[in-house]
Amino acid sequence: MSKPSLLVVKIGGNIIDDEKTLNAFLDDFAALPQQKILVHGGGKLATELSKKLGIETKMVEGRRITDAETIKVVAMTYAGWVNKSIVALLQSKLAKAIGLCGADAQLIPSVKRPVKDIDYGWVGDVVKEKINVALLRTLIRENITLVIAPISCDAEGHLLNINADTIAQSLAEAMSGFYAVTLIYGFEKNGLLQNVQDDNSVIHEINFENGEALKARGVITDGMIPKIDNAFAAIKNGVETVIMGNALHISQLAANEKGYGTRIQS
Amino acid sequence: MSKPSLLVVKIGGNIIDDEKTLNAFLDDFAALPQQKILVHGGGKLATELSKKLGIETKMVEGRRITDAETIKVVAMTYAGWVNKSIVALLQSKLAKAIGLCGADAQLIPSVKRPVKDIDYGWVGDVVKEKINVALLRTLIRENITLVIAPISCDAEGHLLNINADTIAQSLAEAMSGFYAVTLIYGFEKNGLLQNVQDDNSVIHEINFENGEALKARGVITDGMIPKIDNAFAAIKNGVETVIMGNALHISQLAANEKGYGTRIQS
Repeated sequence: MSKPSLLVVKIGGNIIDDEKTLNAFLDDFAALPQQKILVHGGGKLATELSKKLGIETKMVEGRRITDAETIKVVAMTYAGWVNKSIVALLQSKLAKAIGLCGADAQLIPSVKRPVKDIDYGWVGDVVKEKINVALLRTLIRENITLVIAPISCDAEGHLLNINADTIAQSLAEAMSGFYAVTLIYGFEKNGLLQNVQDDNSVIHEINFENGEALKARGVITDGMIPKIDNAFAAIKNGVETVIMGNALHISQLAANEKGYGTRIQS
Repeated sequence: MSKPSLLVVKIGGNIIDDEKTLNAFLDDFAALPQQKILVHGGGKLATELSKKLGIETKMVEGRRITDAETIKVVAMTYAGWVNKSIVALLQSKLAKAIGLCGADAQLIPSVKRPVKDIDYGWVGDVVKEKINVALLRTLIRENITLVIAPISCDAEGHLLNINADTIAQSLAEAMSGFYAVTLIYGFEKNGLLQNVQDDNSVIHEINFENGEALKARGVITDGMIPKIDNAFAAIKNGVETVIMGNALHISQLAANEKGYGTRIQS
């Protein structure tokens, strides 16, 4: 028997920050016929709240340094406001949705990142092999769309800030034993672009070979290299398809329609 | 076959506000042998965060007037920081816990309170007959302790602020068809007191008859009258036992030990 299909969709800050964009995305997302998991970041909200509270935002290589005050801010914005707002909106669009973070029922067990050169503070790394696949399956069987905030905790009960891309990838990999998983990274661009200035210059397919060539030619640049490498890793670990594309084309991306987004394959 | 037992425990602000008190409570709560649901308020955190953000806190008869900014603050503090902190701590104490609010999977469907004399803003009333008992039962069967934040939403996808006492009562009543439910209101006093100044003057039992007498004599005063009336209503609606007492005596209260708390009976 072939595996049932499951979508794991991650949306970034640019989709969440604008109410109309989020609503438009959720309209289409709620209507998708597949079982699905939505992983969201927190967008600028955490940064804005920190600013209002007089907490300095420190980023190192795109990662937020998470001190004791900042973990409160990110738990509040990601797991509180953003997560529950999305859940409430999805339900108004008739999708049965439940909002969780990695801490809930040890969904995504994590460890505090050890301090090497940089002390990231209350930032966590996912313990992939301990993901609570059983609970995810139970909820999905109840036809529930899971909305996951990028917060988890360690075994001592400390909340941790986790990279949302990593959570999406880890969930996609963990579920691939039971589902044919499509992992979609939705953002504000149409895909990975040949020319950053031209939104129509989407590279429709990246595989191991042209991937290396695109890196060498500098088409895949700094910020994108780890994303592409992680996409390759996801496929190696069982995920069927990884697509990066415009979150507002979610219907086409989820249907794996040609001409939309960048498909990463082995 | 007799019904399995279920505890529904509500803790108030004084327990949540102090880290050590919360930790002590959760130590005992996690060790309880029964299946359980924990409903929490947000304590002073929402008020403090509002203050830091320059949002004026308006209370009418103990209820928070919840404008567009305030619903963000309460969703962040209740469903974000407080809820996930409790979940993470419970798990470090080996209780499998999941944090939800009323919006999740339409757990506690609600409607925005109609404006009569007072416009409470984004405050909701529970639609008791629509509580998602099936999901609660599914999770409880998985041996999961539910931690519920007093936030829900309406059918249009607006988040709503709900009274935590009401949520606890509504859940207790809804579950009483399937479980022998004990509803415990845990706070900082040892129970309902004959003399507010004397923490040893606990009234151990209130029934319909002595309840009226205690009201008439002014022992049960303004703030307590709706709580007692709601407790009577809960019993009328199927809840087996309602107890009010010191949250730090949760082991004794949950075991229905004599000499602890105030037991409300029909």
